[in-house]
Amino acid sequence: MSIKVSIAGASGYTGVELLRILLNYKEVEIVQISSRQYEGKALKEVFPFFIGSKFENLKFVSELDQNSSDFYFLCLPHEPSLELAKQLIDNNKKVIDLSAAYRIKDPSQYPIFYKFEHKYTNLLEKAVYGLPEIHREKIKNANLIANPGCYPTATLLALYPSLKSKIVKGNIVVNALSGISGAGRGLKQQFHYPEAFGNSYAYSPLNHRHIPEMEDQIKQITGQEIKVRFTPHILPVSRGMISNVSFETDLTKEELKSLYYETYKNEPFIRLFENPPQIKNVVGSNYCDIFVEKDERTNMAVIISAIDNLAKGASSQAVQNFNIIAGFKETYVLKDLSIVYP
Amino acid sequence: MSIKVSIAGASGYTGVELLRILLNYKEVEIVQISSRQYEGKALKEVFPFFIGSKFENLKFVSELDQNSSDFYFLCLPHEPSLELAKQLIDNNKKVIDLSAAYRIKDPSQYPIFYKFEHKYTNLLEKAVYGLPEIHREKIKNANLIANPGCYPTATLLALYPSLKSKIVKGNIVVNALSGISGAGRGLKQQFHYPEAFGNSYAYSPLNHRHIPEMEDQIKQITGQEIKVRFTPHILPVSRGMISNVSFETDLTKEELKSLYYETYKNEPFIRLFENPPQIKNVVGSNYCDIFVEKDERTNMAVIISAIDNLAKGASSQAVQNFNIIAGFKETYVLKDLSIVYP
Amino acid sequence: MSIKVSIAGASGYTGVELLRILLNYKEVEIVQISSRQYEGKALKEVFPFFIGSKFENLKFVSELDQNSSDFYFLCLPHEPSLELAKQLIDNNKKVIDLSAAYRIKDPSQYPIFYKFEHKYTNLLEKAVYGLPEIHREKIKNANLIANPGCYPTATLLALYPSLKSKIVKGNIVVNALSGISGAGRGLKQQFHYPEAFGNSYAYSPLNHRHIPEMEDQIKQITGQEIKVRFTPHILPVSRGMISNVSFETDLTKEELKSLYYETYKNEPFIRLFENPPQIKNVVGSNYCDIFVEKDERTNMAVIISAIDNLAKGASSQAVQNFNIIAGFKETYVLKDLSIVYP
Amino acid sequence: MSIKVSIAGASGYTGVELLRILLNYKEVEIVQISSRQYEGKALKEVFPFFIGSKFENLKFVSELDQNSSDFYFLCLPHEPSLELAKQLIDNNKKVIDLSAAYRIKDPSQYPIFYKFEHKYTNLLEKAVYGLPEIHREKIKNANLIANPGCYPTATLLALYPSLKSKIVKGNIVVNALSGISGAGRGLKQQFHYPEAFGNSYAYSPLNHRHIPEMEDQIKQITGQEIKVRFTPHILPVSRGMISNVSFETDLTKEELKSLYYETYKNEPFIRLFENPPQIKNVVGSNYCDIFVEKDERTNMAVIISAIDNLAKGASSQAVQNFNIIAGFKETYVLKDLSIVYP
Repeated sequence: MSIKVSIAGASGYTGVELLRILLNYKEVEIVQISSRQYEGKALKEVFPFFIGSKFENLKFVSELDQNSSDFYFLCLPHEPSLELAKQLIDNNKKVIDLSAAYRIKDPSQYPIFYKFEHKYTNLLEKAVYGLPEIHREKIKNANLIANPGCYPTATLLALYPSLKSKIVKGNIVVNALSGISGAGRGLKQQFHYPEAFGNSYAYSPLNHRHIPEMEDQIKQITGQEIKVRFTPHILPVSRGMISNVSFETDLTKEELKSLYYETYKNEPFIRLFENPPQIKNVVGSNYCDIFVEKDERTNMAVIISAIDNLAKGASSQAVQNFNIIAGFKETYVLKDLSIVYP
Repeated sequence: MSIKVSIAGASGYTGVELLRILLNYKEVEIVQISSRQYEGKALKEVFPFFIGSKFENLKFVSELDQNSSDFYFLCLPHEPSLELAKQLIDNNKKVIDLSAAYRIKDPSQYPIFYKFEHKYTNLLEKAVYGLPEIHREKIKNANLIANPGCYPTATLLALYPSLKSKIVKGNIVVNALSGISGAGRGLKQQFHYPEAFGNSYAYSPLNHRHIPEMEDQIKQITGQEIKVRFTPHILPVSRGMISNVSFETDLTKEELKSLYYETYKNEPFIRLFENPPQIKNVVGSNYCDIFVEKDERTNMAVIISAIDNLAKGASSQAVQNFNIIAGFKETYVLKDLSIVYP
Repeated sequence: MSIKVSIAGASGYTGVELLRILLNYKEVEIVQISSRQYEGKALKEVFPFFIGSKFENLKFVSELDQNSSDFYFLCLPHEPSLELAKQLIDNNKKVIDLSAAYRIKDPSQYPIFYKFEHKYTNLLEKAVYGLPEIHREKIKNANLIANPGCYPTATLLALYPSLKSKIVKGNIVVNALSGISGAGRGLKQQFHYPEAFGNSYAYSPLNHRHIPEMEDQIKQITGQEIKVRFTPHILPVSRGMISNVSFETDLTKEELKSLYYETYKNEPFIRLFENPPQIKNVVGSNYCDIFVEKDERTNMAVIISAIDNLAKGASSQAVQNFNIIAGFKETYVLKDLSIVYP
Repeated sequence: MSIKVSIAGASGYTGVELLRILLNYKEVEIVQISSRQYEGKALKEVFPFFIGSKFENLKFVSELDQNSSDFYFLCLPHEPSLELAKQLIDNNKKVIDLSAAYRIKDPSQYPIFYKFEHKYTNLLEKAVYGLPEIHREKIKNANLIANPGCYPTATLLALYPSLKSKIVKGNIVVNALSGISGAGRGLKQQFHYPEAFGNSYAYSPLNHRHIPEMEDQIKQITGQEIKVRFTPHILPVSRGMISNVSFETDLTKEELKSLYYETYKNEPFIRLFENPPQIKNVVGSNYCDIFVEKDERTNMAVIISAIDNLAKGASSQAVQNFNIIAGFKETYVLKDLSIVYP
């Protein structure tokens, strides 16, 4: 018997990436995919690389049938996702929401960072932040997964052992780099190929939307109000993300390394490296590669992580949550996603 | 029971690509991988993206044991491959040779294009040119597969229906573009990143080594001496290849299209397109995407194909041959290689 | 005393490139620049790299004053350019039109390839095709320059010695590659960075608009109806263009080379190479680098040229025409455009 | 009368960049260029983009004549530069050394970071650190310029107003990104095009050689021992560098901005931006673009600078120093280096 799955907003990059991964499940039936832009078109017409796959003739609908599936992946803008998730949960469906609509527990942050009031605070409380390495137990029984943002995923995995051990002193400084697919499929002048070619720059240098999401999780884990000084940068590639995290700590190099190797020793998707991780080693996969060191000169920890922003930073993490909830082995399919090299 | 496989020259790009694909076979045991450069090192030390995979602890040896395996994939330079293939065949092994050592039936071409005398002309005669869409039947019982070059694969698949129908008049003009992985993993000044970045140019404009390979196959298929005017160009990407083929023909547009759609209607890895194919739709896969049109103004056929030079142009094609010989379904594993997009 | 110059459509890539070049003239005063999109904005606001230059405070107007300048460069779409050029010429101004509105002498081609009727056939007759290496004498006294397209520039310069000597037999096959800036600054899904990154493909494989332009010039030079089988390809870089030209000829290798070296021996912007030219050697400059060879096997000439599509393929060629008309040395400023390497 | 200039190590990227810039001086005669690798070859043979320029026939010698020139630019490895600079200074020549041999005042740092003992500590004391925005007065009369490293240039210009005002509290965290030309022209596996394509990663995360250079200058300016927590990252482009600097400060946003705008108001090569700077706006030029803000949430200053690592980070800065010493206007030639866009 197969699990019925629908995807809302399936024509964006995270939707397509979900389809790429779900192709590998013989136990999953894709019931519907939605896209307003491509309503009525077949998947293979819009994305010809699906020709020859079992999904090729799936047709985009404008709105999903809310009864037809067991699981719904939402790859929508934040506000439509807020509504649709509510309706589906009321309808007793399982929802994995890739938007930010249910990620931050403190509803007061939404008007500030996302320009809308959060109307469903009860549901917000029940939503589980879908970072399995931190919240695995809660995920198992969750109905609504708030699938983490890409920067928070890379950054929180770099921080988690330090946070749970409460070894962070002062603020955390995070500099991150992201491939341009992270900005979505919508057209923008700065991402027109000739202009982005050979270019790089910081953006949202003071108030990126992922800051409250990171600080909210940090607070949940530590109970402390630790601030994140965060700057993201554009990397002129399609996929890949690096998060470079530093903070003061009194742990020695050996203690710090032990903490990370110990915390993550059984995590199937965390790989610890003695050299800074490369995005090319993770693109296409669900891995998060992490380097951890202590800079004795400045008494600071230096932790650098790399993920694929569309995979562990979005869609393969969504599938990892799906595996946990649906009762598959957590690594099912995901461990076999091959990394195309070079 | 598993099939025992060894790979010679496994640290080059085609060797690594073979490993990536063979990871998906539960029926295959990799017995040995060789590399002079990395002798004694584990696969995961040299290529960290294999960490966490079942191959991670494979160790490179300097020379393969010639008795330990059923199948040998040779990813060596042409002359060492010439010798090793001979020894393995004499030892009753199955060999899939990714070098050019056994590709051209006419031994007189080797001194001209490859600067060595071909010593094993008997074996050369028995070797089967491993382009399944053309030589599937012979491949089934072959002991030695001469796995085709990347440009010949893309070009011959663009030409095959026309060749077998003998509709080509005069010479064939082929312009092709290749990602830089086609030049191998060895360091060269022109492929140092800052110099290749933003660059493109034709190379070997008169006498590329793949010309005799293409003309040899053309002669086998047509019985005619048709010449190929061939220029390859450097494309500043890692993977991907386009072959643009034109020749005079009296077929109409409709006849030409019918010919291609008919010839390839059951081919699982040929996809015919109404628009010129894009390398991004094939990278990582075994597909060859083909566009076919007639330019009535010049009375010329215009056929454009796209492949991944390391996949259908080398390693996944080698595995396609392996599937045929070893008795797997021809599409086994290969149909499930996902295309990472964007 | 300075020459007064205005630029229509100055916010596109060719307009900006003109400004970059004209910055180097102390004898030129930019009177006006137009752009509907950026009306009222200063150049430095839209293109911050102009900050600190003498043009930084130029403000975009929506329409140019038709009396204020001596020279007008038109970087507009074809139809607005058709009209504006007519008005300016009637007003006794010098016009260098970078659109295709006046390039093809045969007006019947416009409805077919450009979807408009050419209303000003008298003016079309008087317009001079601004390829100085071919039409230098006529350019000197021209009022209206039809500045050539990028593919025609690269291709006709590769062909010119052969055309004027009438050595071409049969059709000409042209395969060309262009950086994406050639498609302009307007947003398109296929040029969104994540999608164009690592991608390449042929486009307009049968009927690109530059075909009639090339064939028109070929006819003017040879008096013959020679057809061009032309396929352009997308190159995933910002700037640079290669044209690979082949045709049958009975000239020997030596005769062919002599013809080219002799024809171009005094041309300041043509550089003949013994190896295929690289786009990186011409980007930012007005050079056209050319390689010429005879493939004795196929009795075909192989001629490969490289230009910067926005420079010699558009704006620096426009300035070359300007130099000739305005009485500057033809190489003035243009010889000093530096090539940034690597 | 012309100034005689020679360049040692002229075949590396910084040497070629010097030649590109010096082409624009009618007052400069290039007497000799050296390169062991290319001894006896003409510049145009090795770097064909110089064909047609007045430098095209310059021939590489293996060693420079130490008497023939007034100025020597040294683009050598650190140790040969150490020696040659000493000899030339003893010979009363003006030397601009692009290596690190004379950059750090404290000789004890050389064995630690550069693995050699500094033998010429007297000369080290006299050498002037060639960052004109900080040391303009000393540069005027310097005989030996220690031309700054690329990361120190970008970082110190981002810091200078804060340092001279002593507003920095605690350590400084610097994350920087550099195009691969910064690693030089020598071949390395990780910079082979297929491997660097689409890749990015941090490197030297604890002890990059530019750390002591930055801290030495910080100490000279502030008198304080402020530590720099520095991580550089590989950016998969040829040229361009970003430095992202953060530190605690009690200045308000307004005070901080005023400080920068005031300090730099007359600097011809510093451009202050209200948005984070883009490398594409500075590549090919001598500009350093800077963004300055206060993050009130963390009480930290956020300052981001962008330069061309080969220009302001090396060769155009060397020419800026040359202009100052030789008595040219400081902006001579350098203000006219055009930025090729897009």
